[in-house]
Amino acid sequence: KSPRELGIMIGVLPTGASNSITDVSGVKVGHTTVLKGDSVRTGVTAILPHSGNIFQQKVPAAVFAGNGFGKLAGSTQLTELGNLETPIILTNTLSVPTAMDAVIDYILALPGNENVQSVNAVVGETNDGYLNDIRGRHVKKEDVLAAIHGASEQRPLEGSVGAGTGTVCFGFKGGIGTASRQLPVHLGGYSIGVLVQTNFGGVLQVNGLQVGKHLGKFEYSNQLLNNVDGSCMIIVATDAPLDSRNLERLAKRAFMGLAKTGGIASNGSGDYVISFSTASQVRIPFRVDTALHSMALVPNDLMSPLFMAAIEATEEAIINSLFAAETMVGKAGRKIEALPVDRILPLLHPDD
Amino acid sequence: KSPRELGIMIGVLPTGASNSITDVSGVKVGHTTVLKGDSVRTGVTAILPHSGNIFQQKVPAAVFAGNGFGKLAGSTQLTELGNLETPIILTNTLSVPTAMDAVIDYILALPGNENVQSVNAVVGETNDGYLNDIRGRHVKKEDVLAAIHGASEQRPLEGSVGAGTGTVCFGFKGGIGTASRQLPVHLGGYSIGVLVQTNFGGVLQVNGLQVGKHLGKFEYSNQLLNNVDGSCMIIVATDAPLDSRNLERLAKRAFMGLAKTGGIASNGSGDYVISFSTASQVRIPFRVDTALHSMALVPNDLMSPLFMAAIEATEEAIINSLFAAETMVGKAGRKIEALPVDRILPLLHPDD
Amino acid sequence: KSPRELGIMIGVLPTGASNSITDVSGVKVGHTTVLKGDSVRTGVTAILPHSGNIFQQKVPAAVFAGNGFGKLAGSTQLTELGNLETPIILTNTLSVPTAMDAVIDYILALPGNENVQSVNAVVGETNDGYLNDIRGRHVKKEDVLAAIHGASEQRPLEGSVGAGTGTVCFGFKGGIGTASRQLPVHLGGYSIGVLVQTNFGGVLQVNGLQVGKHLGKFEYSNQLLNNVDGSCMIIVATDAPLDSRNLERLAKRAFMGLAKTGGIASNGSGDYVISFSTASQVRIPFRVDTALHSMALVPNDLMSPLFMAAIEATEEAIINSLFAAETMVGKAGRKIEALPVDRILPLLHPDD
Amino acid sequence: KSPRELGIMIGVLPTGASNSITDVSGVKVGHTTVLKGDSVRTGVTAILPHSGNIFQQKVPAAVFAGNGFGKLAGSTQLTELGNLETPIILTNTLSVPTAMDAVIDYILALPGNENVQSVNAVVGETNDGYLNDIRGRHVKKEDVLAAIHGASEQRPLEGSVGAGTGTVCFGFKGGIGTASRQLPVHLGGYSIGVLVQTNFGGVLQVNGLQVGKHLGKFEYSNQLLNNVDGSCMIIVATDAPLDSRNLERLAKRAFMGLAKTGGIASNGSGDYVISFSTASQVRIPFRVDTALHSMALVPNDLMSPLFMAAIEATEEAIINSLFAAETMVGKAGRKIEALPVDRILPLLHPDD
Repeated sequence: KSPRELGIMIGVLPTGASNSITDVSGVKVGHTTVLKGDSVRTGVTAILPHSGNIFQQKVPAAVFAGNGFGKLAGSTQLTELGNLETPIILTNTLSVPTAMDAVIDYILALPGNENVQSVNAVVGETNDGYLNDIRGRHVKKEDVLAAIHGASEQRPLEGSVGAGTGTVCFGFKGGIGTASRQLPVHLGGYSIGVLVQTNFGGVLQVNGLQVGKHLGKFEYSNQLLNNVDGSCMIIVATDAPLDSRNLERLAKRAFMGLAKTGGIASNGSGDYVISFSTASQVRIPFRVDTALHSMALVPNDLMSPLFMAAIEATEEAIINSLFAAETMVGKAGRKIEALPVDRILPLLHPDD
Repeated sequence: KSPRELGIMIGVLPTGASNSITDVSGVKVGHTTVLKGDSVRTGVTAILPHSGNIFQQKVPAAVFAGNGFGKLAGSTQLTELGNLETPIILTNTLSVPTAMDAVIDYILALPGNENVQSVNAVVGETNDGYLNDIRGRHVKKEDVLAAIHGASEQRPLEGSVGAGTGTVCFGFKGGIGTASRQLPVHLGGYSIGVLVQTNFGGVLQVNGLQVGKHLGKFEYSNQLLNNVDGSCMIIVATDAPLDSRNLERLAKRAFMGLAKTGGIASNGSGDYVISFSTASQVRIPFRVDTALHSMALVPNDLMSPLFMAAIEATEEAIINSLFAAETMVGKAGRKIEALPVDRILPLLHPDD
Repeated sequence: KSPRELGIMIGVLPTGASNSITDVSGVKVGHTTVLKGDSVRTGVTAILPHSGNIFQQKVPAAVFAGNGFGKLAGSTQLTELGNLETPIILTNTLSVPTAMDAVIDYILALPGNENVQSVNAVVGETNDGYLNDIRGRHVKKEDVLAAIHGASEQRPLEGSVGAGTGTVCFGFKGGIGTASRQLPVHLGGYSIGVLVQTNFGGVLQVNGLQVGKHLGKFEYSNQLLNNVDGSCMIIVATDAPLDSRNLERLAKRAFMGLAKTGGIASNGSGDYVISFSTASQVRIPFRVDTALHSMALVPNDLMSPLFMAAIEATEEAIINSLFAAETMVGKAGRKIEALPVDRILPLLHPDD
Repeated sequence: KSPRELGIMIGVLPTGASNSITDVSGVKVGHTTVLKGDSVRTGVTAILPHSGNIFQQKVPAAVFAGNGFGKLAGSTQLTELGNLETPIILTNTLSVPTAMDAVIDYILALPGNENVQSVNAVVGETNDGYLNDIRGRHVKKEDVLAAIHGASEQRPLEGSVGAGTGTVCFGFKGGIGTASRQLPVHLGGYSIGVLVQTNFGGVLQVNGLQVGKHLGKFEYSNQLLNNVDGSCMIIVATDAPLDSRNLERLAKRAFMGLAKTGGIASNGSGDYVISFSTASQVRIPFRVDTALHSMALVPNDLMSPLFMAAIEATEEAIINSLFAAETMVGKAGRKIEALPVDRILPLLHPDD
């Protein structure tokens, strides 16, 4: 059961129809889970902003680095031009090049891209090396392409799937999580969806409840954090027509959502947010055929409800990843337990 | 009584001796409260990194803009050079120039600064215009100089004093708050102190407890936020020897502490963090007399405990400001109630 | 005579009608020159993006810090919101607060701003303390207001006027300079105008000619640069409809123009560029009355001619300031010679 | 013959012994040139900051994005942590993933790195797709490893070699260039070396001389620039002990050197600078074994001579690349002529 089904109502805004990033119309998500033998526990998650040729119809986008100890590919061009021209791929740290190469394959092969000579592949990662034989680089180009081609507008699976297969979060099994918010019409009526790949530490709070403290399991409670193994990738989609500047501001709020779960963005954590707008009227064509690009954007003054929605959806997506992930045994017989939901539920405030 | 005296224990790390920014040795704080007639509710708070000539002995420093809708003065030079050369002044939005001018007076007049021709005054602000006749610009240079000269190493007063005199936070009376953390020796043994000027909105959480939700008082619960009136200034001091890069990372964590109180960094909020190190061996002399500057710095890999401390101390400083501030009536007979602590205490989890 | 009248043709693009920032329709410039006795050599220059109420009709804007050793006020809010809501004021380092205060006076007093409680004054500076008694802070609020109210759409005076009264550039007398470019219709047909306040060092080049080298007068040619005294403020205006992201890119190109004059952005130099668009359709109203802001923007792919124009106009504006400025004697009898144009002209390449 | 041998003396500071990035002690450069049949014109250049295990002994480093239309890998972690842990690889746009994968291979295989699970490969690129069948992705991992393993402290070859094999600059054949400066002892005595991969456009100037204008060959002189094909990668090495903040400032000055050659950083240009310090006392060990990292750094106030050196060396490295590159015929029979040195020399000012 999801936290929400268990009565854990994060935030004050309503969710979208499926409480998922795919509530933002047109967004598609695909997973490839790579599980082999005793020690391969990894995978790929692909997020597509729309169903068309993304390179030919780029979307406004932004990146915020909460803590940049990560191998995010494609961020400088995305930031300079304010747009995204490929699917976003999430995978493990050492498979970023493979994923980039697969994205280039994908873009070069799309009809209409026959003369394309430059592709800015956007690939994020977290380090699943505790449970996964990460040095073996078991993700192959086909796995990446399968995640892209298999992407759908259905609510994506959560927990230990795709790029979340081998991740660890707050000392429990992490993984993929997703959530959404739907703003009321008088606040714009927009959808905001978030997908996370959780692999970080801190002092877990579930909707404010001090779970890490109650369970005696938190950063520095017994030993030094292994700084290298952290990270949280956060993808924020919205149908609000935003330019890259306001998308960057939105991305920053997702990082606030991470903070509310008790994450501390430790030195070794690669905590990045990538945000994009799916509004069709703000798309950026590859070939410019007019001297001016007309659009209608949400003004600064009306951004705050979107900010609030991004905070709430990120917090909930992270918690969802923890509730969905199941205990996993991996490399060298290491075992990471699922979050002990049964021990948490009695602690929840009756009114929360 | 403070939240901690009432049993609200934020975070997992121990506080410093007085749970205040002045736990960081040498840091001094001074307030000038400007309260006149029916409609003047403003003031000044000065934070001094050490007791010497700050211009001659600059301290490493950094700025992080959580949301830059604010008039922070001095940030670009501070960032370029990585240092702070004046006291930090907090006041109201329209009194920033007056405060800068007073800081220049102060620096030019210090013995040893007779030939100084360039002063980078660092002044932050929040907008107290709901309770205060802000257009009247009632803060005078003498008020600023009084705050500087009156600064002491004692625990500063909290609540509606100094730059917090007229501020509003989460719909309740905000103000000045402070808190600190003392790292255990095996995590470095450093002190981290935070001082905040709280004047922002969102959905209040007290140590995770959904106070805003329980009281039905939160952003968008009844009307649109007045975007212009927000802001939170956060000052982080530490005796850990850090360079400006790691001080910027530390500043970013303070913003995470703000997130944990339910702040949303709304469009109209000027949420800035200024961080500095008081360690004497990293001071930057105005007149360089050696070709190399020797120092010993905390390496990246040992930063995470400091990050955690900054998050915790910021969260607690904000909550402290709310518990300390008392109901105030100001301009046009407007009244802002103090946080109803009596209604909150029964809601607290018995184990929190 | 101007360099262009002397046959020095910088760049390959045509100038605007008056080769001035005021070629960008609606832009106004005003100077107040403060010259008193033996040692007061300072002043104020105001740049207004349009003739209306700038606070009510903000313009898209951006800042680039080439080297941030300067006291630029207003940059963080300008960057966060992507707009400019006041005239831009240039003055000396220690008079920034006075100028800010005057800008606040000006904005609060404008009809329609009766309820305004927050003003982001944008003020830049260079340090004229070699010729000017800068510690005396001789610029008064009235001087600033006079520059604003006296601003006109005429080509502004250049050389030792306004904020350039006491400045020094490449060891010669610097000051205010301006230039413009007019793009041909097939490249967009836009105007780009630049105004500079020159007070920096390096190895002077005039349209590529190694003047500093030929005259034996350049950085480190005889003694260490006094790092504190540098700085160049650069203002770029255009009627091209640009958002803040592309305005920031444009600002960065102006810094390239500075490089081409031989500037080195020394440690002590505060080299900032502020750029803005005057296109009426991209103005940002203070009070938002629609859910979306419609506009038509220059796409990324058509920016390069604007970049080239900004580089050329900045280079020429700096050279113009040097040719226009006359020898000045100031504080303590110090004398700064004008650029010896007569010695330079014979060196110019006959075809340049 | 090099420009300097032809009497073109760029700047006022002396060069290092070989006027090359390898004048910075310990820096090694290796090239793999990939030339096959009619249409493969590409390659790899590797820059190693020292001869040891770079992952175990990281070097302080920084990145500056002059214009971020490029696929630079590794920049966010490099910036967050302030260090470089791999060789820097330059190649073509679509071969970045292959180069990253090879760097990971290289690092994982080094003795002492048996347990490494995270590698931040730093790879830059320019687009050689005019002369090269870039979509064919002809660079293989072995080519990258060969460049790393073949790297030497000898002066690297310039022109159409390695990553410069197929590049085009100012409409002429570009390629790899290098230059250096040696500061006099009273200015620190440091070495600064630069290596560039030139593939960009504008209006060429050779030591100030308006070559592009004289030859009638410059941006917009006849047709619109193909925005996608540009880029210039610039690598700056120094033995001055600098932290990442001052290295970033140094990197920004290299971009000024690019400006002096007439580059305009067009929209489609990926103009990045990566700078690092080779000083042994500022190296960052992978495994921290002390609570504090002791070092002695160049203070801000002594940075300006280094800035000047970086500007000069970058300008000269770019010009060197043009003088060294020879006419090349590539994909689809396209031909790019070498810079016509014979036509330029007579134009040079006799005293330059």
